[in-house]
Amino acid sequence: MDHKFPKVVIVGGGFGGIELAKKLRGREVHVLMLDRHNYHTFQPLLYQVATGGLEPDSIAFPLRKIFKGQKNFTFRNTEVKQIFPERNVVDTSIGEIGYDYLVLATGSDTNFFGSKELEHYTMPMKTIPEALNLRSMILQNLEEALIETDPEKKAGLLNFVIVGAGPTGVELAGAISELKRHILHKDYPELDPNNMHVYLVEGSDVVLGPMSEKSHRNAYQFLLDMGVNVLTGVRVLNYDGLHLNLSSGQSIISENVIWSAGVLGEVIPGIPKDSVVRGNRIRVDEINRVIGFDNIFAIGDVASMSTDEYPNGHPGVAPVAQQQGRHLAKNIIHLINKEPTEPFKYFDKGSMATVGRNKAVVDIGKLHFSGFFAWFVWMFVHLMTLVGFRNKVVTFVNWVWSYFSYDRGIRLIIRPFNRQSMTEDTRQK
Amino acid sequence: MDHKFPKVVIVGGGFGGIELAKKLRGREVHVLMLDRHNYHTFQPLLYQVATGGLEPDSIAFPLRKIFKGQKNFTFRNTEVKQIFPERNVVDTSIGEIGYDYLVLATGSDTNFFGSKELEHYTMPMKTIPEALNLRSMILQNLEEALIETDPEKKAGLLNFVIVGAGPTGVELAGAISELKRHILHKDYPELDPNNMHVYLVEGSDVVLGPMSEKSHRNAYQFLLDMGVNVLTGVRVLNYDGLHLNLSSGQSIISENVIWSAGVLGEVIPGIPKDSVVRGNRIRVDEINRVIGFDNIFAIGDVASMSTDEYPNGHPGVAPVAQQQGRHLAKNIIHLINKEPTEPFKYFDKGSMATVGRNKAVVDIGKLHFSGFFAWFVWMFVHLMTLVGFRNKVVTFVNWVWSYFSYDRGIRLIIRPFNRQSMTEDTRQK
Repeated sequence: MDHKFPKVVIVGGGFGGIELAKKLRGREVHVLMLDRHNYHTFQPLLYQVATGGLEPDSIAFPLRKIFKGQKNFTFRNTEVKQIFPERNVVDTSIGEIGYDYLVLATGSDTNFFGSKELEHYTMPMKTIPEALNLRSMILQNLEEALIETDPEKKAGLLNFVIVGAGPTGVELAGAISELKRHILHKDYPELDPNNMHVYLVEGSDVVLGPMSEKSHRNAYQFLLDMGVNVLTGVRVLNYDGLHLNLSSGQSIISENVIWSAGVLGEVIPGIPKDSVVRGNRIRVDEINRVIGFDNIFAIGDVASMSTDEYPNGHPGVAPVAQQQGRHLAKNIIHLINKEPTEPFKYFDKGSMATVGRNKAVVDIGKLHFSGFFAWFVWMFVHLMTLVGFRNKVVTFVNWVWSYFSYDRGIRLIIRPFNRQSMTEDTRQK
Repeated sequence: MDHKFPKVVIVGGGFGGIELAKKLRGREVHVLMLDRHNYHTFQPLLYQVATGGLEPDSIAFPLRKIFKGQKNFTFRNTEVKQIFPERNVVDTSIGEIGYDYLVLATGSDTNFFGSKELEHYTMPMKTIPEALNLRSMILQNLEEALIETDPEKKAGLLNFVIVGAGPTGVELAGAISELKRHILHKDYPELDPNNMHVYLVEGSDVVLGPMSEKSHRNAYQFLLDMGVNVLTGVRVLNYDGLHLNLSSGQSIISENVIWSAGVLGEVIPGIPKDSVVRGNRIRVDEINRVIGFDNIFAIGDVASMSTDEYPNGHPGVAPVAQQQGRHLAKNIIHLINKEPTEPFKYFDKGSMATVGRNKAVVDIGKLHFSGFFAWFVWMFVHLMTLVGFRNKVVTFVNWVWSYFSYDRGIRLIIRPFNRQSMTEDTRQK
């Protein structure tokens, strides 16, 4: 490494971090990426891992492999514990690391809204190990339901509740309902599919809140058609691992409660409290620079940039992170060259969500469409965005196979899920 | 279920158990299969999972899916703890289960020859979680080697020792040596590949002992060509997690010691001690019936049938288990119908092992061949034997991809390996 060049330290190999590091290829900087995983996670497809539709390894891609041959790039598999802005240093599990420019691209984690109870008893799904735990739990509970004689306990094993009707919640509810309709009677002929129920609980009045009104209506209808019990305008009051009490007065007996009701930015200690705003996001200026610092930046889910169009910050989606990453690369070079910087502007290409086979909703600007074509577009876009040729091919094979066989073949309990033996650490990371 | 039919309980969904249950399809018996995993493991390819060549999910297949639509088949995901032959009952984690015929198809586990030290410090590879632990450990130790400054510790992280030169040991040594030659310099440009060493330690004088002399010689030469240090006629004296002391007087510094030096049958308590012979296998007669019992059988790795050709029992390979499973199905029907049984005869179709790309050895009867064609035959046979169309396609895609890219793309540390936090339970299962 040539030590004359400034050192850009990127914390996190998600969508934003990757685009930033790629754009700095060949530039007169050293790029050091730090991530506690040695792979990039394609989070939009986690729900397919959780429901046996995809291998975990198809939506993960080794970070080192992405940057193979990029001479100004170094990777360290480590966790950043603390930032010391006054010394331009971060403390990590492998010691202190200095930086000239620091970019926080740490993303977000599940928001349990401060409830230790919900954190303990419900299942989050933000990482691959979490999706695998969910897969194991679903399959284990079906196995247990087979031999359970107590009717209440059996109902608890066969009722599935997804809390939060954003894209993740809607997609999960759809996928679990397809498991019920296409798999249950084949795999568990002893179980009556009519005893399995899927609930989707949402605090606001619509599903897929940030999308268009047409998408709300169409997705809602798709969910009903697939047999999902959609409860909108309903909040979770409490949950003891079996009884889920709702603000509507209803109580659902379920051991399978999946929590996708919100996210919190993953802020690293050392960022002043008054820089952290709603959703635990870090307030940044129009070039993603953390307010109050010269050389610390935040991009993607963890950043909150207030603009005229997005006064409360941009949506926490991959395209925002990717565009901010690419844009920041240019601005870092500008800063190094003492050139004027350019403010970030988000180009919204649209949004989409899939509910089930042949059922998806797509909004592009004022254009809305749904059904088979939307579903096809959803698959195409996700396949193209997936990192790595091998991953694309394996995912494509799985999708074609699932489509024609009405099957999700990967119903494996590789590591059994055991809530009791889980530590905070294995749960979150 | 029609309770007039006799109940055949099969413990274990390996090669033997599956063939047995399949052959009983449509027969006037109830088949109940018990397995602590809900999937079949294709053990011959575990080493490719451990070295990042295949997804774990490609070599696993849900047991329920194999028997989809087989009306006389039931599966329970449970562990058998004890047999009570006097009552025709097995005790399991989900309670007592009665049988008319009991078939033990439990396979084998790693043989550490009674050494708690070796069991604690070396890595076995008989299950998918074990192969994943190994994958994580190899990648974690390479990451650690990057930042290690102490030369002895660094050598320990970069030296890989495989103990036992059966097919598993040879295949692993070859695969790790390919990681060194084709991947290391791309993923870790900071590491000098010359500092990474692969050792294969074998107690007998040859590699691939049970194969032909030509195979011994060719495999040995392949290993040398690939840069593996083959130490034959050498036993492990002791290992403290860093220093591996050998009977030759040599000591190797390594944190990566993989133990493939032998197996022990997985005998369930309740089988009398005098029925258990060398290698912890259960002595069976010529129809795989456990000596001293009328209605208890053992097939595959856990069974030891002494014949003129195989006085110490058959080799512990998949074809023996499969043939015994198929044959026992016929004999169980004979027994039910009070017809004479037919003694088992093993038809040896040959054996093979692969060392690396274009490098394999095949023995079929007196015929031996090696090199590209043998390697091609090895791949074809393994692909065809793999359970499930989806698994075949995904594996084929991975192999074609690896062949042309010289890459093993699945270098993921999905769950970090931590020896300290492992319990006996997670290690073995």
